[in-house]
Amino acid sequence: MLGNFNVRTDLALEAKEDCDAQKIPVRGVHVQEERDEEREIFTTTVKIETENGAKEMGKPVGTYITIEAPNLSIPDEGYHREISEELAHHLKSLIGEEKKSIFVVGLGNRDVTPDALGPEVIGNLHITRHVLREYGQLLLEGKEVREISSLVPGVMAQTGMETLEIIRGVIEEAQPDVMIVIDALAARSTKRLNRTIQITDAGIHPGSGVGNHRNGINRKSVGIPVIAIGVPTVVDAATIVTDTMLSLVEAMDESEHLRNLGGTLKTLNREEKYQMIREVVTPNLNTMFVTPKDIDETIKRISFTISEGINIAFA
Amino acid sequence: MLGNFNVRTDLALEAKEDCDAQKIPVRGVHVQEERDEEREIFTTTVKIETENGAKEMGKPVGTYITIEAPNLSIPDEGYHREISEELAHHLKSLIGEEKKSIFVVGLGNRDVTPDALGPEVIGNLHITRHVLREYGQLLLEGKEVREISSLVPGVMAQTGMETLEIIRGVIEEAQPDVMIVIDALAARSTKRLNRTIQITDAGIHPGSGVGNHRNGINRKSVGIPVIAIGVPTVVDAATIVTDTMLSLVEAMDESEHLRNLGGTLKTLNREEKYQMIREVVTPNLNTMFVTPKDIDETIKRISFTISEGINIAFA
Amino acid sequence: MLGNFNVRTDLALEAKEDCDAQKIPVRGVHVQEERDEEREIFTTTVKIETENGAKEMGKPVGTYITIEAPNLSIPDEGYHREISEELAHHLKSLIGEEKKSIFVVGLGNRDVTPDALGPEVIGNLHITRHVLREYGQLLLEGKEVREISSLVPGVMAQTGMETLEIIRGVIEEAQPDVMIVIDALAARSTKRLNRTIQITDAGIHPGSGVGNHRNGINRKSVGIPVIAIGVPTVVDAATIVTDTMLSLVEAMDESEHLRNLGGTLKTLNREEKYQMIREVVTPNLNTMFVTPKDIDETIKRISFTISEGINIAFA
Amino acid sequence: MLGNFNVRTDLALEAKEDCDAQKIPVRGVHVQEERDEEREIFTTTVKIETENGAKEMGKPVGTYITIEAPNLSIPDEGYHREISEELAHHLKSLIGEEKKSIFVVGLGNRDVTPDALGPEVIGNLHITRHVLREYGQLLLEGKEVREISSLVPGVMAQTGMETLEIIRGVIEEAQPDVMIVIDALAARSTKRLNRTIQITDAGIHPGSGVGNHRNGINRKSVGIPVIAIGVPTVVDAATIVTDTMLSLVEAMDESEHLRNLGGTLKTLNREEKYQMIREVVTPNLNTMFVTPKDIDETIKRISFTISEGINIAFA
Repeated sequence: MLGNFNVRTDLALEAKEDCDAQKIPVRGVHVQEERDEEREIFTTTVKIETENGAKEMGKPVGTYITIEAPNLSIPDEGYHREISEELAHHLKSLIGEEKKSIFVVGLGNRDVTPDALGPEVIGNLHITRHVLREYGQLLLEGKEVREISSLVPGVMAQTGMETLEIIRGVIEEAQPDVMIVIDALAARSTKRLNRTIQITDAGIHPGSGVGNHRNGINRKSVGIPVIAIGVPTVVDAATIVTDTMLSLVEAMDESEHLRNLGGTLKTLNREEKYQMIREVVTPNLNTMFVTPKDIDETIKRISFTISEGINIAFA
Repeated sequence: MLGNFNVRTDLALEAKEDCDAQKIPVRGVHVQEERDEEREIFTTTVKIETENGAKEMGKPVGTYITIEAPNLSIPDEGYHREISEELAHHLKSLIGEEKKSIFVVGLGNRDVTPDALGPEVIGNLHITRHVLREYGQLLLEGKEVREISSLVPGVMAQTGMETLEIIRGVIEEAQPDVMIVIDALAARSTKRLNRTIQITDAGIHPGSGVGNHRNGINRKSVGIPVIAIGVPTVVDAATIVTDTMLSLVEAMDESEHLRNLGGTLKTLNREEKYQMIREVVTPNLNTMFVTPKDIDETIKRISFTISEGINIAFA
Repeated sequence: MLGNFNVRTDLALEAKEDCDAQKIPVRGVHVQEERDEEREIFTTTVKIETENGAKEMGKPVGTYITIEAPNLSIPDEGYHREISEELAHHLKSLIGEEKKSIFVVGLGNRDVTPDALGPEVIGNLHITRHVLREYGQLLLEGKEVREISSLVPGVMAQTGMETLEIIRGVIEEAQPDVMIVIDALAARSTKRLNRTIQITDAGIHPGSGVGNHRNGINRKSVGIPVIAIGVPTVVDAATIVTDTMLSLVEAMDESEHLRNLGGTLKTLNREEKYQMIREVVTPNLNTMFVTPKDIDETIKRISFTISEGINIAFA
Repeated sequence: MLGNFNVRTDLALEAKEDCDAQKIPVRGVHVQEERDEEREIFTTTVKIETENGAKEMGKPVGTYITIEAPNLSIPDEGYHREISEELAHHLKSLIGEEKKSIFVVGLGNRDVTPDALGPEVIGNLHITRHVLREYGQLLLEGKEVREISSLVPGVMAQTGMETLEIIRGVIEEAQPDVMIVIDALAARSTKRLNRTIQITDAGIHPGSGVGNHRNGINRKSVGIPVIAIGVPTVVDAATIVTDTMLSLVEAMDESEHLRNLGGTLKTLNREEKYQMIREVVTPNLNTMFVTPKDIDETIKRISFTISEGINIAFA
């Protein structure tokens, strides 16, 4: 099981791939793929339907929609518009028409570039709640507009509080109907960085996000439906080192060239190899992450794409 | 009464001066001055003790301590340290020893320089609540440390919510003992800008702060004691124009040189003159403020001085 | 003449209006208006053709195109796109096709919101010079792309150098063909703030911009053609006070209601009145400016509109 | 030789350690250590005196002073003051008394947290050049103050220009006597991150810094002496993976437990092992870096310590 491996990915898609790679049969999980070759947008929907599926996947029950868009981190206004529309489509179908008041929360630390995705998204939203409450729908020229409110709670090192405490308090007071939460995620593989958007109705679970929340942020903990939008912007340093080493050891087993180096490695199974490797990885890597050098431009573009998606869906 | 004049100042000191200038006898208000000539720190304590005093001053009942420090906006590390210590002294005496958990809120908009004072102060605080809750006092080497938590709620245009809603919710959830709220203020006179710190146990009242809160943030509205720390960083554009014109008209009355210009202006009393002048002030000035060009450096220095004051007092 | 009045406006349009208001006949200046009522974009081209015209206008010889767009500070993506295209059109016609290497400089202080226009514009530009130099035109799929480079020099309080020194040095070394310089301007009237873009081939002249450059930045001083793009984001505090008082005094002369107040004011001419008023304006106002409270959102939107204009024109 | 290994470290100290670890005898390099146990400040001076030493070390001829301070990334005002003073001491001895005009350049990208060290240092400097040029020494109350100027040139992706082009141009125009350049560095080992300051008179060499400059910035290329101050804030992702794997392979050779796994690895020398490992490291890691999650607070504190060091030395 993935849990034993203690590998860090926030993407249900990667968790599923990992189970498949290990030939673990996962029951209670349903996967559906859609490939729009023309627009180069690939959508995978992973439905974790049972507690058993949740346990094997290491993720709570829920629907996880993954939009993969190879050009997401490249400047191309038209293409980004298409992704925003795809995102808007999924948000509307997950949230439905009847929710009138939407509370958008941008998690993460605005002072650490790859963790600033959430705060940056909030910066581009069209906030309407205060205007609607002051002037009603009249001002908006007949258009049916939802109440949009937002918050950037900050991270625990800045506030001294669990993010969940802050969010629960504000929801209690402001009484929105549904919450959208944006967070930068950790992927397992660098190849998914900054080209993938995950949308899920399962909320944020402990250990998720670049900043590692300790408490789940979901319907159960906050009292209203929670839709989480995440983009993997980092890989855990420990994960990347371990994975690369695992490749090395497996290459030793398989490659003609390296065969005689590997020796009795063949006699170990995958998990034993993994454990052996972890012994070597220094513990200080656990507080480190890996991210690309041009992360500033990527965050700027993707956060704009996501806020436009939310604006299109509800404004 | 000041109310009629509708003049904007957040400083109790200026409100008192204005009453004095108009020779309005203010009962229920007690003023005490302290001049530390050597350190060039002048402290005025205005105590508004009755509802009548509150009405005439246009400020709620409470103690308003004003620290005036001419060199506050000048770079001088040692001098700023002295102000931080003066501030710490007043904070400790207003808050007392028994409060264990202190919640510091930085009001204002971090993207508008003169309104960024609150968020900037939070950025330099030593936040301890999460560490104390995780590891207890042990970690802190025997020092008695208070729980410090903080929040930057943002302004209504960014959140769609009243600041009061956010603060009430978070207090409800996190249960601090006392709240310190930092805000950039509007002064009446440019001569007080960036050299004055007001500390009060009366909280923040409606219309106060650069961003003009609509609801009071005080013990009554949030349920715990509220100490407000404010620094005037702007003057309302309408106020500055009106005040300058009032000076002109009064100069016409008094100056030998201008006497024959003033004509029958003498026959008007001060309030009639004020009203006459307001007719000329264009309404669009009401959303405008006046601030110095080097406001970025000033905010940086003063916010550091205030956060050091809080750190000295409680960490 | 305006010079005597020492009134601060960076807009040629306002300088012309002021001359007209004072019924000063200005020779050597040619004005042409174009009103696109449907798109609500009004374009005024002021051509200062002679040294005499320059003297009376208080601005150097050159072409000053002013785009007035009432909704420029309002969020409306489609409308902003139209302004970007209008700007692109004027840039292309002023710069011509033969210039291959374009150096864009963002003047101003990124830490003072209304002065951050220049730095913000640079942040959204498509920079191509380094890519073209490394890989040539090949990479760009047959499209003819100009070399775009950029610099945010900072302000004198941050660098200790005149902006002109920095720019001259970089031009000397990098050898671009033409320079575009972006700056936040001071208007005379609040009604022009954040809804006007001025494009001129006269560069930036001393005293211009929110930060008040001491040396002209123009073809003569830097050695290559300089196109300046400016948006008024502030009004000088002294100007706004003086202008409002002038209105008061003139209203005294003209209004039935105020006539007997004005007394012998009638015997003064406009300039004498202006001088009289200046005596009252306190000198500390000279380092202050007036700006709207929502300047953060305005700067964000307008800077994006301008960078898109440059991107459309040359990328 | 290190060159063959193609391992990335900007610290001369680490380069020397690496040579020692490989038992490569390095001639022309002189090392001196100083341990201030009480203050916990350890200073190592590496002098590369010959071209041969430079070749073996992979660093140009020059003096490299490394201050190691374990608590540099921990909040402790007094301790940081001591480091600032230590830095000031070295700066004064490297620069000497006769240089009157000092130009401080902050390299790096202010929008990518671990690369923002240079720009952040500039933000806290006392800039004096413009004041001295305007008012002379008179204003400064008899104190002998040097001319301090500064620049944040930005990175090539933002400017389209080589940093060297910008710096050369500005030096040509402004004619300072000496240049101090601040840059975030890459270390080889995570244990040196954010606790080490390197000061060198060798300038910045190609491939150095988080942003990987292509051209050296040194006395030869800019025409005046260049003192570089660097702090390692990242490790190259490829380096960290390769190093960890090398440890694994070596552990296989040495550990009783793993011996029979390692097989014939013993027959390879260190370089052959290294090459074997590199084959597995994916090329996309080359544009990635590893950095700690709390890099925002670290950058804030260390940049302040460095700017105070410069302020103490010259203001």
